[in-house]
Amino acid sequence: MNNSILSLSCPMPKLDFDVITLGHGSGGVLTNKLLESGVFDLLKNPILDEHHDGAIFELDGKLAFSTDSYVISPVFFPGGNIGELAINGTVNDLAMCGAIPKYLSLSFILEEGLTMTEFWEILLSIKAAAEKSGIFIVTGDTKVVERGKGDKIFINTSGVGQLHPKAAISAKRVQVGDKVIVSGNIATHGIAIMSVREGLDFETSIESDTINLNHTVEALLDTFGNDIHLFRDPTRGGVATVLNEIARDTKLGINIQQKDIPVIEEVYGACELLGLDPLYVANEGVFMAIVSAEIADDCLKKLQTFENGQNAAIIGEVVSEHPRQVVLQSRIGGKRVINMLVGEQLPRIC
Amino acid sequence: MNNSILSLSCPMPKLDFDVITLGHGSGGVLTNKLLESGVFDLLKNPILDEHHDGAIFELDGKLAFSTDSYVISPVFFPGGNIGELAINGTVNDLAMCGAIPKYLSLSFILEEGLTMTEFWEILLSIKAAAEKSGIFIVTGDTKVVERGKGDKIFINTSGVGQLHPKAAISAKRVQVGDKVIVSGNIATHGIAIMSVREGLDFETSIESDTINLNHTVEALLDTFGNDIHLFRDPTRGGVATVLNEIARDTKLGINIQQKDIPVIEEVYGACELLGLDPLYVANEGVFMAIVSAEIADDCLKKLQTFENGQNAAIIGEVVSEHPRQVVLQSRIGGKRVINMLVGEQLPRIC
Repeated sequence: MNNSILSLSCPMPKLDFDVITLGHGSGGVLTNKLLESGVFDLLKNPILDEHHDGAIFELDGKLAFSTDSYVISPVFFPGGNIGELAINGTVNDLAMCGAIPKYLSLSFILEEGLTMTEFWEILLSIKAAAEKSGIFIVTGDTKVVERGKGDKIFINTSGVGQLHPKAAISAKRVQVGDKVIVSGNIATHGIAIMSVREGLDFETSIESDTINLNHTVEALLDTFGNDIHLFRDPTRGGVATVLNEIARDTKLGINIQQKDIPVIEEVYGACELLGLDPLYVANEGVFMAIVSAEIADDCLKKLQTFENGQNAAIIGEVVSEHPRQVVLQSRIGGKRVINMLVGEQLPRIC
Repeated sequence: MNNSILSLSCPMPKLDFDVITLGHGSGGVLTNKLLESGVFDLLKNPILDEHHDGAIFELDGKLAFSTDSYVISPVFFPGGNIGELAINGTVNDLAMCGAIPKYLSLSFILEEGLTMTEFWEILLSIKAAAEKSGIFIVTGDTKVVERGKGDKIFINTSGVGQLHPKAAISAKRVQVGDKVIVSGNIATHGIAIMSVREGLDFETSIESDTINLNHTVEALLDTFGNDIHLFRDPTRGGVATVLNEIARDTKLGINIQQKDIPVIEEVYGACELLGLDPLYVANEGVFMAIVSAEIADDCLKKLQTFENGQNAAIIGEVVSEHPRQVVLQSRIGGKRVINMLVGEQLPRIC
């Protein structure tokens, strides 16, 4: 269900205020009014409906727990807004642990003056993204800071998931010969944000690929179980940074082939224009898998049957040479070491 | 262990930067440098040491899950700072659910220009508060926003706890005749913050009472089990707002006696001066318990054996008259209805 359909079925409630004020963070009548004016109804589920300071649920066994604060600027961008990003980001972090996302907390830091129209639009995206991933928002918090002490809206989501019974995800399990798979076109999210960033805007039809990856990951674990050694999503710092972290943590080397790395032509063009290497640009709807060589081709084929895996590719392998280093073989055959991102390419990309 | 002792045993590491820059939120080399310069060492535990995007642990049964973002201003205040507040706040929310706090996530939104000295001081408080409560910080996130788009530091903590086997905490269990206990002097935290707030500062020796309440709550549950019907901590909105929420949720009335409500004389004086009712001022180190009449006196006695329960008192009871309303009997015998806090007494009190 996309946002425009949601807007029709969940119109913004009639309120006697149209912007967020400091009083909405008081914990008193105004906070209650804000939440009960439609927020609780929109996100309704039996656990959230308890309205306690915390949520109670039953879960057994190995659990995954992850948190992220989202400060992306601008809040609305081509292909999405901070709301769905905040849901998908934490859902995906849980998936990367090999977990099935179950319960989510949702915490807002609102800047005085945020319009209710904007807030409602963000809430609709949150609802749609949560439903798509199957996670339940069970507890939350709302704070308001003075104008000029925040930037419209920051969101924290923290999530709890249950480990997939077949998952054995750990850097320790990565071995020489393993293949490196990337699930889709890289650098799309980062370029979409850059295209609308103040002082930098340029014409493009590129949209962020923010999406939940959990169903795809679950299907891969169902089929390939512990032949999948590691999942990582290359968000801030891009593919290059994540590969360097893997090389560091495994004390092994990684070789990648430039020709195999999937990048949309328009994104590639924008990177050229801006002098950026797509390997360092942030992603949202992409994950990487390090899998045993035996199942790599089958895993790739399976991945390509999913909408968010259509452009998946095997881009490299784990090697014993040059431990802790990532080496790229370029299109024309040259080799160079790829380091971790230094400094900041573009702040507040997620 | 207090902060000054901690500062000696955990001196700030030597760094080649002394303020936070946007690069520290890049997810690349600088983020890694910041975290590995001492943050990971300081908060060290086997789960955090995995350095994955999420933490994995095993827990069974009924769990509690809670989140809060902390935006208190000023960040350093008499009696504490935002670091310990962020740990104690979420630990206490879990305790209020009747849970034993187990695992915590820690997410920073830093403003460019925050000094490392300030950040380290906050981290030391986080470490000390986590150790005191017994909770493990197992996963986290660090974002940086441009100068003027945040306010030094915002912190989100989310926590997972295991329900105490004897806990049966629910508004549904509150019944006519139950006693209302408050665990200590009220309004102290709010007045401590007000005393140093820009434009409002006045001479006082009042310090915030921010503290973890979980060990005290656990001991009460050990002894009185399901005779404790509800716990709530009267943070934003104060005692009056929480009592109103309880009256609303239970559809019962609540009577309280002004003479029985514990308030430090200096806090009472400051409230008089500022024209505030202590019942609406925010608390941090105080909780309320609604317990069955039979055990109320014993529960009070037990509570008074704890350092943070010395000033505990029974302040009222649940009644069938005036459903959904809270009525205060004043010192001179008059009665008046106490409503929920409207608007904002003082923004960013937690």
